[in-house]
Amino acid sequence: MFRTAELGSSISKAEYSEREPLLREELLALQCELRELGNFPVIVVFAGVDGAGKAQTINLLNEWMDPRWLVTRAYDKPSDEERERPEFWRFWRDLPPSGRIGLFLSSWYSRPVLDWVYGQSTSAHLVDRLDRIARFENALAEDGALVLKFWMHLSREAQERRLKCLQKDPLEKWRVSQRHWKHWQMYERFVEAAERTIMRTSTGKAHWHIVEGVDPFYRSLTVGTLIRDALASRLEAAKLEQEMKARRVRAAAEGAAAVAGGTDSTRAAATTVDVPVVSVLHSLDMGQTLDKKAYQQQLREYQAKLALLSRKALKKKLSTILVLEGPDAAGKGGAVRRITAALDARNFQVIPIAAPTDEETARHYLWRFWRHLSRAGRVTIFDRSWYGRVLVERVENLASEAEWKRAYAEINDFEEQLIEHGIVLVKYWLHITHDEQLARFKAREERPHKRWKLTDEDWRNRDKWQDYERAVNDMVQHTSTLHAPWHLVEGNDKRFGRIKVIHTLCEQLETALARV
Amino acid sequence: MFRTAELGSSISKAEYSEREPLLREELLALQCELRELGNFPVIVVFAGVDGAGKAQTINLLNEWMDPRWLVTRAYDKPSDEERERPEFWRFWRDLPPSGRIGLFLSSWYSRPVLDWVYGQSTSAHLVDRLDRIARFENALAEDGALVLKFWMHLSREAQERRLKCLQKDPLEKWRVSQRHWKHWQMYERFVEAAERTIMRTSTGKAHWHIVEGVDPFYRSLTVGTLIRDALASRLEAAKLEQEMKARRVRAAAEGAAAVAGGTDSTRAAATTVDVPVVSVLHSLDMGQTLDKKAYQQQLREYQAKLALLSRKALKKKLSTILVLEGPDAAGKGGAVRRITAALDARNFQVIPIAAPTDEETARHYLWRFWRHLSRAGRVTIFDRSWYGRVLVERVENLASEAEWKRAYAEINDFEEQLIEHGIVLVKYWLHITHDEQLARFKAREERPHKRWKLTDEDWRNRDKWQDYERAVNDMVQHTSTLHAPWHLVEGNDKRFGRIKVIHTLCEQLETALARV
Repeated sequence: MFRTAELGSSISKAEYSEREPLLREELLALQCELRELGNFPVIVVFAGVDGAGKAQTINLLNEWMDPRWLVTRAYDKPSDEERERPEFWRFWRDLPPSGRIGLFLSSWYSRPVLDWVYGQSTSAHLVDRLDRIARFENALAEDGALVLKFWMHLSREAQERRLKCLQKDPLEKWRVSQRHWKHWQMYERFVEAAERTIMRTSTGKAHWHIVEGVDPFYRSLTVGTLIRDALASRLEAAKLEQEMKARRVRAAAEGAAAVAGGTDSTRAAATTVDVPVVSVLHSLDMGQTLDKKAYQQQLREYQAKLALLSRKALKKKLSTILVLEGPDAAGKGGAVRRITAALDARNFQVIPIAAPTDEETARHYLWRFWRHLSRAGRVTIFDRSWYGRVLVERVENLASEAEWKRAYAEINDFEEQLIEHGIVLVKYWLHITHDEQLARFKAREERPHKRWKLTDEDWRNRDKWQDYERAVNDMVQHTSTLHAPWHLVEGNDKRFGRIKVIHTLCEQLETALARV
Repeated sequence: MFRTAELGSSISKAEYSEREPLLREELLALQCELRELGNFPVIVVFAGVDGAGKAQTINLLNEWMDPRWLVTRAYDKPSDEERERPEFWRFWRDLPPSGRIGLFLSSWYSRPVLDWVYGQSTSAHLVDRLDRIARFENALAEDGALVLKFWMHLSREAQERRLKCLQKDPLEKWRVSQRHWKHWQMYERFVEAAERTIMRTSTGKAHWHIVEGVDPFYRSLTVGTLIRDALASRLEAAKLEQEMKARRVRAAAEGAAAVAGGTDSTRAAATTVDVPVVSVLHSLDMGQTLDKKAYQQQLREYQAKLALLSRKALKKKLSTILVLEGPDAAGKGGAVRRITAALDARNFQVIPIAAPTDEETARHYLWRFWRHLSRAGRVTIFDRSWYGRVLVERVENLASEAEWKRAYAEINDFEEQLIEHGIVLVKYWLHITHDEQLARFKAREERPHKRWKLTDEDWRNRDKWQDYERAVNDMVQHTSTLHAPWHLVEGNDKRFGRIKVIHTLCEQLETALARV
């Protein structure tokens, strides 16, 4: 795999001096264009052999381009705050927004490779971790990010020469530590790890470029040129796409003007094309109720239990994440309140999910959920969640079909990481029937201090009940996994629903606590 | 001071049951109004004697109000990431945005009080820290935040009873630790600390309410009612203000329509009222130059030196923050590039300051600078900075006179915290003359790959040269302190300016390294 990167490729100083200023100018211009267009981020990953010039190349790029719009991130051992969250939390945190370039060193590849080289993880585990990386990068690329990866290589001999040469230079010798020589002695094992890594993670959208690192002129121009070409063609495509989109919008507007009531008929058509849904929700026995006395007794009981369990969980650093989804007026807020009443406010947070902020819009849609993951032992309650992508965004055409369809896999992958980290994840679909919703909307209209809860949008959403039901059905089908099942809650009777929610939570926590 | 809180105030269960539902409804309605108006945050601080019901009150508020729009934060010992930044970093990080309520427990008061009680800090130091807190809260209140503070009190005897009572209850005894008894034995010293704290930090805009904590009914209703009243009157005032503002805008629009070219004449008037400025900038010898050869030699020399110094600083965990301000086209970007070229991209970040994001707009203007403070040992370069408040925001009327005038003290306080934490802060005003700016603008127009750098706004800013000069003069006057002086750099000759910038940085770093 690395033969082509051991050819001693080099470029003369004269050629470098001639080409470098041009390349630099082009890179700067492209960076500026990227910032102006501002609709995708660039993620550049550097990995490879020690001494092959990764850090120097990153420094050079910072010199060539405008460092104000570059973000450089290198990762050391995780801090205590980082260790208390899933491994990828810190990488998500640092993702550049659209319009900017992020340069990543000793990134998500570092631990998997080192753990395997040191014999601290099996080959099967390495493969699992590499697959996770591939999915991560793929999700970013699908979302529009330009992902570029450079594997900087040196032959065993070249590495030895390089380390010795650095050691001789009084200004550079600080770069070489005992660890470098130790790694050099393990050269063969590193190369094996590199091969496995590249094979497993070189995908169409996140391809590895292997670059020979011996000659600084050669490697700098190579990396710079590859970035330039990728960025230029991506910008070209993005601009074309924008133009096409504008044209489509114009065409649609003209078409709509031609047909009377065009918008409505389009929506009606989209709805009537659907065959009637026989969804998983129809299997629920919505008539279940609970009388007031039994409710109060059970609520007290479960709240006391939950209080105890949550304290134990805090002590054992076991985090819990609750996801609450359901139709408008299903009683999510009330259910949340019955849970939080049993918890210590210092240790839980409720995250209401509404429209994203501009910092959130500028990144992959999962970014805004990653950022809310709390330190170990806490309870995080998402009132609506990442499932918005396959529910409201799907039904309202806020996400394209490709976007919401691939979201199932992205969500499963995200949740898998939560669970692997030891987080207890409990997902609820709190359901009410179409008739019950109507009754509740009307009740809200009549009670002045509840009227604020009811908006025009709620009525509009109600019209799309069938579309939502289909979306829920697909969601449960695709994302109710063994480790993160959906709990469907019959909520027509508020008391019954609330008890089922808190009871389920206690059950899940108890099982999890027995395991740790 | 605490006599009034040792009266055994209590409320009967019957009265509580009658008043509680009403209060609850009012609080919920106010919370909703706050969210809809959304133009200020509420910050509620709880402190006081152990066992006086701080945590229970916070929990109750979470139950009473909608927990989705509440943020509760309690602070333990700082994590390693927190320790590597100034003490207040974590408090700034957690400030609620406008429209939301933040409940803070064991907050900024915790460490100063405990350190003094344990004899780990002197009384003078306690006073310093309390003054810092007062400035912090004042800055937030001035910015529009509603700050409410509750000191929950118990007499010595009541505390003893309370702790014993908790210990007897099998469900509550986890709340009482050895530490609580140890603190109880130090009761007198805690009370003394409390008195000093309250006296020093009870200001007009951030007043302490002392609440007797013996009876849960009494303390809950008291705190709830105080929050209700404060929030209601603040909302009233905010709505009135909004109305007045709308009326003023309408009046101004009508007035402007009446006067031909109204806007222009207003601006011209504002400019001509000013007496000619004899600013500190006139004292600069702008004719200084450096020839190319000397420049190249010195640049090499200082870059090598800076590379070495920055590595030492990283090792010693000494952070550096650079602030670059100056007129458009003064060469800030070029100066930044000459510095970053000598640094390792893994250890610096350049933060370009442009318009704030919506998450930033929803908070105090300093929030967006606090959030960028990096871990120990790094270099952070602000290309434009918090000084925007007293420069562009002042000149362009984006901040009111009251706002930019109080910003000087807020900025000095912020910088003092950086310096106390051991951060090396270097502030530059990179200056060019009015003529030189014109020459550079023209040059930019002529060179196609630099044309993007020049915008209409640059030309507009140029018209206000005198206003800016006055603002710079005031800024230097108010914020050039002994520990954070302004370095004025003569930048008409780019080479001279760049060398002065990097040379100054080396000097500052060297001095700081000699000290640690």
